[in-house]
Amino acid sequence: MGRENLTLLTDFYELTMMQGYYKNKTNETVVFDVFYRNNPSGSGYSICAGLEQVIDYIKNLCFMEEDISYLRSLGMFEEDFLEYLKGFHFTGDIYAVEEGTVVFPMEPLLKVIAPIMEAQLIETAILNIINHQSLIATKASRVCYAAKGEPVMEFGLRRAQGPDAGIYGARAAVIGGCVGTSNVLTAKMFDVPALGTHAHSWIMSFEDEITAFREYAQLYPQNTTLLVDTYDTLRSGMPNAIKVFSELKEAGKMPLKYGIRLDSGDLAYLSKKARKMLNEAGFPDAVIVASSDLDEYLIDSLKTQGAAINSWGVGTNLITSKDCPAFGGVYKLAAIKKGNEFIPKIKLSENQWKITNPGNKTIYRIYDKETGKIKADLISMAYEVYKEEYPLKIFDPMATWKKTYLKGGSYTLRELLVPIFAGGKCVYESPNVMDIRAYCQRELDTLWDETRRLVNPHDVYVDLSNDLYQLKHSLLDTINVAGNN
Amino acid sequence: MGRENLTLLTDFYELTMMQGYYKNKTNETVVFDVFYRNNPSGSGYSICAGLEQVIDYIKNLCFMEEDISYLRSLGMFEEDFLEYLKGFHFTGDIYAVEEGTVVFPMEPLLKVIAPIMEAQLIETAILNIINHQSLIATKASRVCYAAKGEPVMEFGLRRAQGPDAGIYGARAAVIGGCVGTSNVLTAKMFDVPALGTHAHSWIMSFEDEITAFREYAQLYPQNTTLLVDTYDTLRSGMPNAIKVFSELKEAGKMPLKYGIRLDSGDLAYLSKKARKMLNEAGFPDAVIVASSDLDEYLIDSLKTQGAAINSWGVGTNLITSKDCPAFGGVYKLAAIKKGNEFIPKIKLSENQWKITNPGNKTIYRIYDKETGKIKADLISMAYEVYKEEYPLKIFDPMATWKKTYLKGGSYTLRELLVPIFAGGKCVYESPNVMDIRAYCQRELDTLWDETRRLVNPHDVYVDLSNDLYQLKHSLLDTINVAGNN
Repeated sequence: MGRENLTLLTDFYELTMMQGYYKNKTNETVVFDVFYRNNPSGSGYSICAGLEQVIDYIKNLCFMEEDISYLRSLGMFEEDFLEYLKGFHFTGDIYAVEEGTVVFPMEPLLKVIAPIMEAQLIETAILNIINHQSLIATKASRVCYAAKGEPVMEFGLRRAQGPDAGIYGARAAVIGGCVGTSNVLTAKMFDVPALGTHAHSWIMSFEDEITAFREYAQLYPQNTTLLVDTYDTLRSGMPNAIKVFSELKEAGKMPLKYGIRLDSGDLAYLSKKARKMLNEAGFPDAVIVASSDLDEYLIDSLKTQGAAINSWGVGTNLITSKDCPAFGGVYKLAAIKKGNEFIPKIKLSENQWKITNPGNKTIYRIYDKETGKIKADLISMAYEVYKEEYPLKIFDPMATWKKTYLKGGSYTLRELLVPIFAGGKCVYESPNVMDIRAYCQRELDTLWDETRRLVNPHDVYVDLSNDLYQLKHSLLDTINVAGNN
Repeated sequence: MGRENLTLLTDFYELTMMQGYYKNKTNETVVFDVFYRNNPSGSGYSICAGLEQVIDYIKNLCFMEEDISYLRSLGMFEEDFLEYLKGFHFTGDIYAVEEGTVVFPMEPLLKVIAPIMEAQLIETAILNIINHQSLIATKASRVCYAAKGEPVMEFGLRRAQGPDAGIYGARAAVIGGCVGTSNVLTAKMFDVPALGTHAHSWIMSFEDEITAFREYAQLYPQNTTLLVDTYDTLRSGMPNAIKVFSELKEAGKMPLKYGIRLDSGDLAYLSKKARKMLNEAGFPDAVIVASSDLDEYLIDSLKTQGAAINSWGVGTNLITSKDCPAFGGVYKLAAIKKGNEFIPKIKLSENQWKITNPGNKTIYRIYDKETGKIKADLISMAYEVYKEEYPLKIFDPMATWKKTYLKGGSYTLRELLVPIFAGGKCVYESPNVMDIRAYCQRELDTLWDETRRLVNPHDVYVDLSNDLYQLKHSLLDTINVAGNN
């Protein structure tokens, strides 16, 4: 499973279209937007992630000799086009929302301004990377929300959809709020905490459970978390764990961090029983870790039931975002540059929500000055300028009668898209993952509780600027389908 | 996104346990089984896949200097253990079910017999790889079953959970029955067909739709499939496509393969209308491709509605196995070797299904001699030998009163586990993917229709040999929980 160069990580039609543009000598500069239409898992927001890997991918774009030979072997590409591919590299501009930012449907999360042949090639990989990591970061933020500040550990590598899903999924999970991961490679690559203790096989490889516990405690005196459910949680695992803790206490060797892990059974019942046993034995500070097919709803339910759990290991349901395993990011043509002007383009659909927003755009986030919370987002034309001192009228692009007037000075504005590539050169340095995580926590604080709640969250308004709204509707009015004949 | 060495693609606890075994000088040879408890998506069977990548991973296991430095930096590993890791490589045996084989719950799909330190390290990556690819191969076989022999193309890269999920997911999808993939990298790596034509952006980048169609047809005269839903399928896309086909016909340049692709709207209605328009215009052999959030249920429903679709492009729901995005493969200790004997080990659970099958085992598949269909699978001890001439009694391991007597000569037997590694050396060569696909088709033919159907399939019996059954129950009877104190 060595890593191939990822330049061919693209849909075949990107290459057939590229050859078409090449043959037609049409390599105009175009604008493509990445956006999505629905938050995953019924969430009221999403967390944007994956930009560092997109940058990596763009920087390393290049067709190797063996790629060219392979494409030649397909008998669909001509030599002049293959020759062009040999010298291919990205020369365009990319703008993007920074990783860890809270985002909403219909907003351009990433914008490519590049010659169409380049912009077309990179569609698939950009979507693959952003869709995956944004999905997992969003899910992680929900799971951590349910855990109400208690540590959530990412434990899903064995159920992830292949190595990368484990590696970059764990990265995204930390961005979304997990305190660390069991995945050692991710921990090494991104300098995030590697977490975990032992498995049932450790216990089963010793003559008996207490010997296994004793050996483990001796070996890892910094953090002794014992897995108590191999044979019988309350009749074997807990008494044995308490015995070992007592022995350590007697010997004056109490670990700094210690506790037990429950990995099966009725976690509400077992955790309360275990808590009681630990407290009665004089170990009120022993941590109770739980890990058994958890997700945000189960954690929420366990909290409601008063489960005595302090720390959560979440695997399958987080690393696959099980209830919604795909983030529906799309990549749509928004404009074609003719001379110095961007000619807006629109994609029609019978479904109003599926009609794209035309033109070269940006996003302004509007915060309430007093609370720092998000009031709304405004998708505007890139050329538009707003000043916080002036009053601002915003309106819902579907229900246009829903208008809001913001007094000058009552709000602050922040442009979300920042330059990543300029003329093919990377002009952005990705923060390290733990810093992105801290930034993401601050981002989540800009949401009202009503938007963060797990079920039926309040939608944040994403409005269109008046210029964009007028442009969109004039394009819709004037498009003459018959004219396409 | 360059590929790191995957040796650290493991759970942190595997390494802490390894150090524990190292310190205890316990490096006995053990048997670990990979098995799963439930088929995904309500399927009556699963398709095993991923072995080639497991082999690759095992062959390349080695801790690089930077891995050792990283582990040292964590402050939990001692120098003697780190020194041991520097020379680490796999020295054990692996047996596995070949890729593309139909498998059922509780069967060991892969068996590791190796010193415990080695067997423990490789748990996570083996599960990651086998779980992912078996999941997608199984899903693909269901989607292809619904398409009733019509070609299904894998189109999901942009929604896959990261690059590997796209690369190896497409590989598994082809194993499960897809005719090819849009993913160029997978097509190159595994020599499978690369498929696809053009996107909405191709159409939108031209002045009008018909110019875009004409250009495409001129460029790709071998296979001209035109995407007709950019503006208005029936009023613009279809008339324009027919006009272009007529022009080609008139010029004597009719493509060998040609047709239209529907990517939105009511596929049942639109495909029937499109079929009628094509037929009336003299193009009865034009292919109608559909691709719009399809899965096995939607394809089945479109078939029932008489949709006039000949070819299917399936993306998100296949590449993520959306209704069940995780294959629950687990890795459980089954035995410890003492001298020349395998001491069986069992993991208890309150749930009867979660109790493991102890000992060093294998699987025999029992076929009905007359029909070639699977009668049942038999999990037996590795030492057991069966002869097809003798009668065979098999029984359900839960409902033991359900017994079946097979007459000698009425059945054939096949052992499913084959040697992959022996003494650390790979003794198996993976077939190429298109050959695995052909083998998988033959495997699927060994299932009764009642097991293949999409909803409420008939379960295939997986029985235990009498020796294994007796061993399991004697272990359950004699396990003395108190004895663990």
